[in-house]
Amino acid sequence: MSIPIVKLSRGIHVMHQFYRIDRLRWSALSESARGEALACLQAVRARYAAASHPRICTYANVGGKADLAFIAYASELAGVGEIHRAFEAAFPVGTLAPVYSYLSVTELPEYVTTEEDMKNTLVHAEKLEPGGEAFEKRMAEMRARQAEYEHYRLYPELPDWEVMAFYPMNKRRQGGDNWYALDFAARKKLMAGHARVGRKFSGRITQLITGSTGIDDWEWGVTLVAHQTDALKEIVYEMRFDEVSARYGEFGPFYVNLRLDPGDLWVHLGL
Amino acid sequence: MSIPIVKLSRGIHVMHQFYRIDRLRWSALSESARGEALACLQAVRARYAAASHPRICTYANVGGKADLAFIAYASELAGVGEIHRAFEAAFPVGTLAPVYSYLSVTELPEYVTTEEDMKNTLVHAEKLEPGGEAFEKRMAEMRARQAEYEHYRLYPELPDWEVMAFYPMNKRRQGGDNWYALDFAARKKLMAGHARVGRKFSGRITQLITGSTGIDDWEWGVTLVAHQTDALKEIVYEMRFDEVSARYGEFGPFYVNLRLDPGDLWVHLGL
Amino acid sequence: MSIPIVKLSRGIHVMHQFYRIDRLRWSALSESARGEALACLQAVRARYAAASHPRICTYANVGGKADLAFIAYASELAGVGEIHRAFEAAFPVGTLAPVYSYLSVTELPEYVTTEEDMKNTLVHAEKLEPGGEAFEKRMAEMRARQAEYEHYRLYPELPDWEVMAFYPMNKRRQGGDNWYALDFAARKKLMAGHARVGRKFSGRITQLITGSTGIDDWEWGVTLVAHQTDALKEIVYEMRFDEVSARYGEFGPFYVNLRLDPGDLWVHLGL
Amino acid sequence: MSIPIVKLSRGIHVMHQFYRIDRLRWSALSESARGEALACLQAVRARYAAASHPRICTYANVGGKADLAFIAYASELAGVGEIHRAFEAAFPVGTLAPVYSYLSVTELPEYVTTEEDMKNTLVHAEKLEPGGEAFEKRMAEMRARQAEYEHYRLYPELPDWEVMAFYPMNKRRQGGDNWYALDFAARKKLMAGHARVGRKFSGRITQLITGSTGIDDWEWGVTLVAHQTDALKEIVYEMRFDEVSARYGEFGPFYVNLRLDPGDLWVHLGL
Amino acid sequence: MSIPIVKLSRGIHVMHQFYRIDRLRWSALSESARGEALACLQAVRARYAAASHPRICTYANVGGKADLAFIAYASELAGVGEIHRAFEAAFPVGTLAPVYSYLSVTELPEYVTTEEDMKNTLVHAEKLEPGGEAFEKRMAEMRARQAEYEHYRLYPELPDWEVMAFYPMNKRRQGGDNWYALDFAARKKLMAGHARVGRKFSGRITQLITGSTGIDDWEWGVTLVAHQTDALKEIVYEMRFDEVSARYGEFGPFYVNLRLDPGDLWVHLGL
Repeated sequence: MSIPIVKLSRGIHVMHQFYRIDRLRWSALSESARGEALACLQAVRARYAAASHPRICTYANVGGKADLAFIAYASELAGVGEIHRAFEAAFPVGTLAPVYSYLSVTELPEYVTTEEDMKNTLVHAEKLEPGGEAFEKRMAEMRARQAEYEHYRLYPELPDWEVMAFYPMNKRRQGGDNWYALDFAARKKLMAGHARVGRKFSGRITQLITGSTGIDDWEWGVTLVAHQTDALKEIVYEMRFDEVSARYGEFGPFYVNLRLDPGDLWVHLGL
Repeated sequence: MSIPIVKLSRGIHVMHQFYRIDRLRWSALSESARGEALACLQAVRARYAAASHPRICTYANVGGKADLAFIAYASELAGVGEIHRAFEAAFPVGTLAPVYSYLSVTELPEYVTTEEDMKNTLVHAEKLEPGGEAFEKRMAEMRARQAEYEHYRLYPELPDWEVMAFYPMNKRRQGGDNWYALDFAARKKLMAGHARVGRKFSGRITQLITGSTGIDDWEWGVTLVAHQTDALKEIVYEMRFDEVSARYGEFGPFYVNLRLDPGDLWVHLGL
Repeated sequence: MSIPIVKLSRGIHVMHQFYRIDRLRWSALSESARGEALACLQAVRARYAAASHPRICTYANVGGKADLAFIAYASELAGVGEIHRAFEAAFPVGTLAPVYSYLSVTELPEYVTTEEDMKNTLVHAEKLEPGGEAFEKRMAEMRARQAEYEHYRLYPELPDWEVMAFYPMNKRRQGGDNWYALDFAARKKLMAGHARVGRKFSGRITQLITGSTGIDDWEWGVTLVAHQTDALKEIVYEMRFDEVSARYGEFGPFYVNLRLDPGDLWVHLGL
Repeated sequence: MSIPIVKLSRGIHVMHQFYRIDRLRWSALSESARGEALACLQAVRARYAAASHPRICTYANVGGKADLAFIAYASELAGVGEIHRAFEAAFPVGTLAPVYSYLSVTELPEYVTTEEDMKNTLVHAEKLEPGGEAFEKRMAEMRARQAEYEHYRLYPELPDWEVMAFYPMNKRRQGGDNWYALDFAARKKLMAGHARVGRKFSGRITQLITGSTGIDDWEWGVTLVAHQTDALKEIVYEMRFDEVSARYGEFGPFYVNLRLDPGDLWVHLGL
Repeated sequence: MSIPIVKLSRGIHVMHQFYRIDRLRWSALSESARGEALACLQAVRARYAAASHPRICTYANVGGKADLAFIAYASELAGVGEIHRAFEAAFPVGTLAPVYSYLSVTELPEYVTTEEDMKNTLVHAEKLEPGGEAFEKRMAEMRARQAEYEHYRLYPELPDWEVMAFYPMNKRRQGGDNWYALDFAARKKLMAGHARVGRKFSGRITQLITGSTGIDDWEWGVTLVAHQTDALKEIVYEMRFDEVSARYGEFGPFYVNLRLDPGDLWVHLGL
């Protein structure tokens, strides 16, 4: 066998999948076939249990669009497909119907903090003398924090909070509201305001932004984890007034999910 | 079992579900299986019968888009899912096909009446002296009324009127008609005019506005209850001329339903 | 049983339904089962045969979108649902698949002719002296004609012509083309021009405009009956140049149908 | 039986239908059932073989959207439905699944050449004296050619070339690009330029434009026949730069088909 | 048999097809039936193995939209249909469900380098004397390179890299952003900038642009092959800032695929 190894220059592949259970076929399964499916899914979850990747996390969808979902993380393209097939193979054939899927990759934010940005912060906000000892110490700290942040963006380890929401999005290209016609500085400034809203929700919302231009039907995938449903509403609503979203954001479907390992999934869904 | 408890800071979860009956599978049921399903659904309705929550209300859809529907209210995210599964489990497997669903949460209106607003009303409209006894008495009354109103918004108890309509909606963000580019004062003023139209229909229409930004595909869910079908038409039509809707409203699908408890549902649908 | 009685302040409910025949299931029916279905549908048609309501009319759809259709008229919301269920119950279970549906209510035109309009006509066009005998006689005539017209709008009796077309429509709310931002006088004037086109087709086209804002996914349903297919094309095409349609009209799907009673439907569709 | 006779003032009905073969059901047919279906379809084709109408032409769709297609021409509305049913009845029940359909009627072009246009051509381009013998002779010729052209438009006989493409289209009504807000002279001038592009493809492309405003979901149906696939691409691409299409054209789905009589259809599709 | 021969003036037909496996039907196959299907598909791949055409290449889709895909290249329209049918016939009936398809043809770029462009390059960039020996030698080289490029565009031989992405696209015709209202020179200049971005990805991305105006639902099909998933993202993202895409590009669905011959496809998909 010679499945090609397709990696990224940096970062990993991320896959979101949402399914319905075919209740008619499920009801025809024997008790032991259901138990076997659960054991099989638990084995898949155990096999892909790295903190970052390869990893699979399972969810119950709430709201009626789907029954269950997973997010998979893998360095190779075939690898993410392999987790996908392993998840599906855990279910007796015909009991799982696909509802929605999304493929994206982790990426560094385009408007990343530069050495220049750090210097400006130290000189203007912290009033430090460039080249001085205090300055260099703070620069080292800032570089380390930035490196850590960039590592998180490329090899994310989302906290295992109770609720997960997913939606894809675009930046608008339309008449006077054309994001891609703005210059870099204007975009960076707009995104900085956007990031400030995100930071206000620290501790309530953790977000993972993955890139999908050229890969799936929207430009980014947004995964939010939270402890409360209204935190999801508040952050997305508050950001909607931010010029980045107000003028340039276009949003796909929203999926709200409960973080449940296979055993609890079985209980919650009555499988 | 450890299904996570996901509550809101304040308010509750609301779920709307619309279904078709698979008549072919239904017709294959024995008389007793149909009766059992009815008994089962009546038990679900009885179990979730709180005035506010946990609560389920059942409906017959009229018009051809669906056959039946429910609205569920629950404090927890898993709780609303639990009512959802209980409703579906009442029907023999394969006899119920999902048509449309909506998940939202109750919320306080953003443009809520403030202490400042109340004062202004008393000073300018009622000509009362700030700090005087009459003033303080009226302030206390207004605060109490406002608290009651806010409680209704967060823990609603919709009157059990004959007709229920549901539709989701967005505020537009497009070229010159960008709601999210307006400042708070402008939006508050526009919404006040909108509310005046709503009040004109008092006694004919009761509305429940729930928030779903970041939770489902539109920003709000609107549930209207009425005694007459044309009251639904009149309020939505009249509001359409209001600037809030004329320039900024975008509307999803409309579902019109008859309020029927399970027994009457069985009769109306010939189940 | 206590199905709620949901009437309108004035006017009646109108329902359009379009279906496909499942030919595979139909072909499995015995000759007598087919005949029974026909007899059953004829009974439904006979039961709801009032000139205005309760009434059902059956049609063959032509063009490939559907096989057959009906329009039902009833004063109550549950009543229109009852005709709907009766129609479907005439067909052996599983032989009828829903294609499209529309729910609306009859209504008076918003831009109705007023006493003031009548006076103006008599004074300016007919050169009559206000208050004079001739004037009062003509006013009485005009009032009677207007009352008759309004009665037709609320309790329509569409002539039983050979072809029926249905489509739903909206008035646009978009940038510079926002119908709902126009004042009443401007809208009334635009609609008067629109009505003139309609009158040119008198004898070739009879139309029924029903309201569905807040009830179904478009704001109005348009039902046209004609003797010739190109009359449908001509009136809709000519109206498209009218500013009301050119700038403000948005149209849903079009369904063209032959008026056929059940027996002829059976022949035409080879049932 | 009393199916109503629904003709046009002038011209005929045209129907396009596209289908998939249900391969699973087809594979269950005996060899003789397949042969019978072919014989039956050949009989349908033979029955409706008039040069203009009633006529049916069969096609294989290429590209994956459908498997096969037909165009039917009939003077009556019920007649086109009759050909439609006859085509479908040739296939064993359940083996044919509808994919797309279109109903339209032939029509005279709105921007037809008038007596005035002819006179202008003779006086200005051919320098003939109005009323003179040469002038009258040329007028007679032009009138005859125009009559022939109009007859072709109303009772078309498309040449039986190898490839047929179909797509529906609208004229745009949007902001500054509103075709229906242009006056007749402006539209006639724009359409004349459009026609010049069409004439450049004479011998490579023959087109049939049919009207469907008020009849189907787009305003016109366009049927192109060609000897080569790239001729289809070239004419549509070149027209797209023409102001009529560049600013005012909106296009539906495109279907490319091979002209195949039933026997060849059977071979090509492996039926 | 007389299937018409439909060629192009120059270039070939290209077909993209995406499918899902019906796992329920597949699971019912015997081991030998699965092996036979594989052998059959391998034979199809071997039969159409020309470097340019007739050719078929098979892929596994990754992401959840489909399971597998192919691209077929053939000079005749019926020929591309024949490869299509041969691919589908390799699978036991009912095991393959179509997901998405695209039909296009190869074409020379409209904004092709002319003799004039070459001369300008030599005179202005290379400072050569027109008509001189050096000039003529360089002209000959440039002509040869151009001829080779044009041959590649018409009879492409895509390198067999690990990843293939496909998406269809349009040039926008909307208000101020109307590509088809630009003159040739403006379009050629914009496309030159676009091409420069493409060349930056040389070695990482090879692209094949095929034309489908008048043939399928978008104007062009874009096929990209790469070694890494993020190369797909980078090139499409970078181009999005190019005015050609920022203002004029409209994009259809994106499909990302692994290049796998039948044997590996069987392993990867667990068939």
